[in-house]
Amino acid sequence: MVSPLDSVFASSTFTDKAIAELFSDTAEINALVQFEQELARVQESLGIIPEGTGHDIFTALDSVTIDPKDLAQGYLNDGIPIPALLNILREKLEPKAASYLHYGATSQDALDTGLILRIKPATKIIQKNLSALTLELRKLAESHIDTVMIARTRNQNASPTVFALKVVNWLAPLQRQQERLTELMPRLLVLQLGGAVGTNAALGRKGTEVSNALSKALDLTHPESPWHAQRDSIVEFANWLSLTAGQIGKIAQDMLLMAQSEVGEISFSSPGKSSTMPNKANPVLPETLLSLAHFCRNQAALIEQTLIASHERDGVSMSVERLALAPLICAAAGSITHASHCLSNMTINKQVIHDNIIADRGLIMAEAAVFKLITKMKRSEAAGLVSQACALSMTSKKHMIDELRELCKIDLDWDALKLPENYLGNAIETINKVLQKK
Amino acid sequence: MVSPLDSVFASSTFTDKAIAELFSDTAEINALVQFEQELARVQESLGIIPEGTGHDIFTALDSVTIDPKDLAQGYLNDGIPIPALLNILREKLEPKAASYLHYGATSQDALDTGLILRIKPATKIIQKNLSALTLELRKLAESHIDTVMIARTRNQNASPTVFALKVVNWLAPLQRQQERLTELMPRLLVLQLGGAVGTNAALGRKGTEVSNALSKALDLTHPESPWHAQRDSIVEFANWLSLTAGQIGKIAQDMLLMAQSEVGEISFSSPGKSSTMPNKANPVLPETLLSLAHFCRNQAALIEQTLIASHERDGVSMSVERLALAPLICAAAGSITHASHCLSNMTINKQVIHDNIIADRGLIMAEAAVFKLITKMKRSEAAGLVSQACALSMTSKKHMIDELRELCKIDLDWDALKLPENYLGNAIETINKVLQKK
Amino acid sequence: MVSPLDSVFASSTFTDKAIAELFSDTAEINALVQFEQELARVQESLGIIPEGTGHDIFTALDSVTIDPKDLAQGYLNDGIPIPALLNILREKLEPKAASYLHYGATSQDALDTGLILRIKPATKIIQKNLSALTLELRKLAESHIDTVMIARTRNQNASPTVFALKVVNWLAPLQRQQERLTELMPRLLVLQLGGAVGTNAALGRKGTEVSNALSKALDLTHPESPWHAQRDSIVEFANWLSLTAGQIGKIAQDMLLMAQSEVGEISFSSPGKSSTMPNKANPVLPETLLSLAHFCRNQAALIEQTLIASHERDGVSMSVERLALAPLICAAAGSITHASHCLSNMTINKQVIHDNIIADRGLIMAEAAVFKLITKMKRSEAAGLVSQACALSMTSKKHMIDELRELCKIDLDWDALKLPENYLGNAIETINKVLQKK
Amino acid sequence: MVSPLDSVFASSTFTDKAIAELFSDTAEINALVQFEQELARVQESLGIIPEGTGHDIFTALDSVTIDPKDLAQGYLNDGIPIPALLNILREKLEPKAASYLHYGATSQDALDTGLILRIKPATKIIQKNLSALTLELRKLAESHIDTVMIARTRNQNASPTVFALKVVNWLAPLQRQQERLTELMPRLLVLQLGGAVGTNAALGRKGTEVSNALSKALDLTHPESPWHAQRDSIVEFANWLSLTAGQIGKIAQDMLLMAQSEVGEISFSSPGKSSTMPNKANPVLPETLLSLAHFCRNQAALIEQTLIASHERDGVSMSVERLALAPLICAAAGSITHASHCLSNMTINKQVIHDNIIADRGLIMAEAAVFKLITKMKRSEAAGLVSQACALSMTSKKHMIDELRELCKIDLDWDALKLPENYLGNAIETINKVLQKK
Repeated sequence: MVSPLDSVFASSTFTDKAIAELFSDTAEINALVQFEQELARVQESLGIIPEGTGHDIFTALDSVTIDPKDLAQGYLNDGIPIPALLNILREKLEPKAASYLHYGATSQDALDTGLILRIKPATKIIQKNLSALTLELRKLAESHIDTVMIARTRNQNASPTVFALKVVNWLAPLQRQQERLTELMPRLLVLQLGGAVGTNAALGRKGTEVSNALSKALDLTHPESPWHAQRDSIVEFANWLSLTAGQIGKIAQDMLLMAQSEVGEISFSSPGKSSTMPNKANPVLPETLLSLAHFCRNQAALIEQTLIASHERDGVSMSVERLALAPLICAAAGSITHASHCLSNMTINKQVIHDNIIADRGLIMAEAAVFKLITKMKRSEAAGLVSQACALSMTSKKHMIDELRELCKIDLDWDALKLPENYLGNAIETINKVLQKK
Repeated sequence: MVSPLDSVFASSTFTDKAIAELFSDTAEINALVQFEQELARVQESLGIIPEGTGHDIFTALDSVTIDPKDLAQGYLNDGIPIPALLNILREKLEPKAASYLHYGATSQDALDTGLILRIKPATKIIQKNLSALTLELRKLAESHIDTVMIARTRNQNASPTVFALKVVNWLAPLQRQQERLTELMPRLLVLQLGGAVGTNAALGRKGTEVSNALSKALDLTHPESPWHAQRDSIVEFANWLSLTAGQIGKIAQDMLLMAQSEVGEISFSSPGKSSTMPNKANPVLPETLLSLAHFCRNQAALIEQTLIASHERDGVSMSVERLALAPLICAAAGSITHASHCLSNMTINKQVIHDNIIADRGLIMAEAAVFKLITKMKRSEAAGLVSQACALSMTSKKHMIDELRELCKIDLDWDALKLPENYLGNAIETINKVLQKK
Repeated sequence: MVSPLDSVFASSTFTDKAIAELFSDTAEINALVQFEQELARVQESLGIIPEGTGHDIFTALDSVTIDPKDLAQGYLNDGIPIPALLNILREKLEPKAASYLHYGATSQDALDTGLILRIKPATKIIQKNLSALTLELRKLAESHIDTVMIARTRNQNASPTVFALKVVNWLAPLQRQQERLTELMPRLLVLQLGGAVGTNAALGRKGTEVSNALSKALDLTHPESPWHAQRDSIVEFANWLSLTAGQIGKIAQDMLLMAQSEVGEISFSSPGKSSTMPNKANPVLPETLLSLAHFCRNQAALIEQTLIASHERDGVSMSVERLALAPLICAAAGSITHASHCLSNMTINKQVIHDNIIADRGLIMAEAAVFKLITKMKRSEAAGLVSQACALSMTSKKHMIDELRELCKIDLDWDALKLPENYLGNAIETINKVLQKK
Repeated sequence: MVSPLDSVFASSTFTDKAIAELFSDTAEINALVQFEQELARVQESLGIIPEGTGHDIFTALDSVTIDPKDLAQGYLNDGIPIPALLNILREKLEPKAASYLHYGATSQDALDTGLILRIKPATKIIQKNLSALTLELRKLAESHIDTVMIARTRNQNASPTVFALKVVNWLAPLQRQQERLTELMPRLLVLQLGGAVGTNAALGRKGTEVSNALSKALDLTHPESPWHAQRDSIVEFANWLSLTAGQIGKIAQDMLLMAQSEVGEISFSSPGKSSTMPNKANPVLPETLLSLAHFCRNQAALIEQTLIASHERDGVSMSVERLALAPLICAAAGSITHASHCLSNMTINKQVIHDNIIADRGLIMAEAAVFKLITKMKRSEAAGLVSQACALSMTSKKHMIDELRELCKIDLDWDALKLPENYLGNAIETINKVLQKK
């Protein structure tokens, strides 16, 4: 349990359980066996292997159980589990059937197809969980369309906004991620069957026919060409996962900042405890989400390296992908799941949000004031007066607009200028546009 | 000239010149000025700024020339060039027009839109160059559909293939990259106009109207919401660039391996010279392409970090993007351009390719032999005999199939089994499918 | 000017000027010429090249000026500037001397030594600037040894500390970085002279003699073996640079957090301006330092890839190093320089620091209270009471210790328990230990 | 078993077993318990906790067994296992002792010290295995000091070298890594004890005394200051691990290239099998070593990010470190162990090495020829003639030196010029210098 993704005590913090199961040793072995079963059945039906052998293989392997540790020595020797697995499977078969197991396929055909057979259900779960997350964000935005708050740029109070617009910054990229996932899935969920070097040579003229039929049997798309050394669609998926975790990292970053003791605009209903300080309410979930964002970004960058595969099939790329891909999928999926937990745990402290506006004493209305004054004087003059009022307010602790009023001595609706809710521009329009997006 | 992308002597090796010009200081300043010009014109036409001011701004700025070094002190102080730029521009304007320059916009509106205004023509050039590259690959494949050669897996001779199928492994991912670029462009080529905090507050109720009109004026798409702190589409583009360079890195890796002295299957017409060894013909272009692939991958990973932007606008993300994005675009574009050069420089040494097959003495027909024998005996027996024949051939230096024939003493078309061109499966079918793809 | 490190308006924000000059095109060319000059002089003195030729080469090259653009075509062709450079230099020499220029050396000898010749003064500047930075931190700590403030863990108020201890967290790692730099320099500042393949074959039996003498002439250490394909000491330096920038990033991160509007414990004397909001005082320098930390980390990771160099000398590693190393050195050095600026720009707002303690209403004394109560009751009971007091204080807005006093009804020096300055443990001792470290 | 480092069938391929055990859930829990035991014992002896409580805690915890899954819920809630662990431990203690468990410590004190307690034996094992590896390399070099072979630069045949010099390129960086490890260990193997915020406030004036005594009890160095938010020495170690794995990656890269079918200079005694091609002998171990090099580099880059820790203790850094550090240590250690396996599995094919020289037909003597001719003519003339001879030899298939002889028609010891063993410069001297280094 070297990786916290596998640790008995830490794994549920960093992964999505249902997804993690898809990438267990057993799930991999099952997918490899399924590939061999369906290959044999398809090949029998196309007259490539002798009548009965396909059926025999399919049936015999149906009840087979493989102990992962029986593949360890073979894996160490071959850098892949397939030769060892085939040895075990052949022992369970009649000699004739044994001859026609894995007929014309190469190890990587089984490994890649076995990977896609698990990625496919993983994408379904991810899609579902991402829908749940975006739905929750939509609801959150809807219920805070009137929650006026301080917007912050470059880590400083800036101008007024509403909480819902902050949520739109969280939601819109995830909506686009849903779009992107839909676009990439047809490229990703494809069969691998190329034989030793991508020519399906052992299948004679029937390679295309077999791979078409096998695609159907396994409910995968048929690729234009074998992709042993074309890893672009795997990399695209890895980048998608990392982008998703990164985008969730942005939500978490905003949460961490808003949950700070001095800001206090949100809090969490079951925060992390300290081993020594009873006053602490640690924002554990946002921290975890941020760590997952960083982890996913790095694993994706590692996977991208597999593009540079040598010749027809590359052993280094294969191992690099193994080292990073399943952890990435599980961590990114964990990020989506935990983001939903995190949102449902979050409380919006409307009173504190309001208090922060009061404590700001109108500095966030500085831009509004400039644009109001600009109708009466030059911009540079207006900006100068407002700057002066801001500085005075810092010392006097009076409201900036009151300071400005004294400085200007002109007629204006000064009270209206104090109200942040009057300075929201097209925020509501923008929010509604994003919320209405299906 | 700290970066080789800017070095007087190295830049043309690592970038595409036309693209690099789009990301020069001057080009950036021009794009920023263009944003301010069109913003003013649109705002006048919508009655937001006084009649005449839009026209005055547009006209006055049309002839303005800014020396980049006049922005250096301001950049150092503000971390952005906009306040300093506006100061200079306002000096060129009548007081009234000066008041209405940059009306209601925030620095990042200008910076982001200015970035997209240069990314847009960059994507057009990239699309064109990528088309040229894929066309060249298509032609290369077409002219080597009969060039039988050794396919190599895990860095070892494996089975026969044709050169065209190797090219398909280069071409198919780039075809998908063309698809992906088409998909991402509408998300990428969007206006930025949100004002200080994404509400367009200074524009009152007219924010949406202005941003719609400005989108049209600048020929950009109108985004659903301001994206100051939504960097996903930039990251998507960065990942696309990196994936493209990585995929070209795979071409380069194959070239480097095939060009090795002992392999010699390809060579280059104007190879790199050594300063001391007249025998050297260095495969400089593939080396450069590989270094660009690594460079691009790392810059993209850095850019992905900008997703984690704090609050409404984030200064760290802004600087990180600046440090990495233009270099990434120029390097990836350089990779595409140089890949075309590299291909047109490459000679396929058909004789050497053939000699390598001869020197292999039939080992690459081992799989073919197993599948031939399997019709007469059990697979394990067949595989055993072929292994034995391979081992004998290593010592005897006789053709493996001849050794096998002696071992087997059965009747077979042994001569046909010696011919790699008989063991190509559906290679041609696959090649044609990919070549016919529009 | 594709990279902001070279941009006329942005470079001084991201680099150290003196260091950037060491990595200009011209500085590189000068170092390459210096290598050839000293090589010739040494070779003449050892009787390897004909009498007079060394002197002639040295003298003739002394006054030579090379226009970097004259190397561009050669660089493009050879992937290195050396063959083109030698052509130009040989034109300036008498035929005989021309024959003995670059005698027995390989391009990479000149390139690597030329690199080290510039890294050496760079390390001196870096050492000096790092000393200045640590001195400034020491002074800052000394003057804030009594500035009691809130310590924060996991982004939440925790317990009391003093500002000087925060500074110790900034200083101690930089002191260790000084140690590490001292350790690595002897490994880094070494000559490269191995000839074509590391055997110095062209120098016959005199290779070692020549490289010893050349090391002395160039004031570099003599390596145990040529290191064309041993990049570990370059990588060690890259990692050192990145660690330094990262450690400075931690200072910047703390600054950004303390400078937030709601925290306000520090501010900057010439903050960044906004193009539209007069209220803004953007913490530009810490943002820049953080972006440099991220940039440096990524470039170092890229450079680490050069370790995997093929055979005796590797062209991909050479280009990757070129793409990333000079930018990394300049950015990391910029980070050190700007960190000093940032510190001298920073104001510690002691009143706000105190106000924040008041506003916390004693929650940060929760641990202190538990350990006080523990002498009178079980820990679980004590912790329970303190938790309850914290919760009550959140609602009542009374001081937590007052709430606790009422809950406990036991005799204690309750007033002393309210004072954060009474709960600082061995902070001063620790601070002094670090400050006294030479 | 989401990570192959934990997979039942793949873990022994990617890790070192002894090291992996040090980073299991159980080993972590044991180290945490050991920290609490020794802390209590030390505190009793210094009169900080009541007499007897230290002894009671030490004894009671000595026999305790914790099921990792009992910490899972607590970990999920707190993002750390300590509060849940303390709850369990306190249940095993008398009430009084329970009150004094973990007295004055913070979770991160236990976690960091618990980490170092496992890193310490890991560094011992790594040191031992690295010594074994360098010894093996030394022996290999010694037995191939006369094995003349082709040196290759930029992936092309270059000039002659000996196999031992190639090994020196593998060995020298690892010798320096041994040096670096010795340097960094005192910085790394340090106690963590700072209490909640690094002041050891709960220990009153005795913080330093306790941490001194605890350092001795745990046989760790006492740090100058608590390092909760000073992660530089962890990052230094991570970089060291990654550099080691990268340097081994260079060995593997050379092996992969030399083992290629057309090169054949080395082979492996128990190569990987293919599932379909009996001719294949896959270089599995070098492939694995390369994948580990890439994996380690990426994890180290991720860990470097923890430098940017917020305030006094940072939860994101803590989780990022957990996600990447143990996998990195185990993978890098695995890389060292497997490199030894790989070397003992490798056969040097001296005959093939010689045959490759023959097949080169003297091209690798081109530089030698230039330097021989240079005594009789201008360098440019000499280089021109040799280039011509190289070109002729490519077509005529005659030895390059024979072609040159005909072109030159001058008197020279042409036969001596054909012998690569005459053109080795100071290779033997260099080799001996590195081999004699202790």
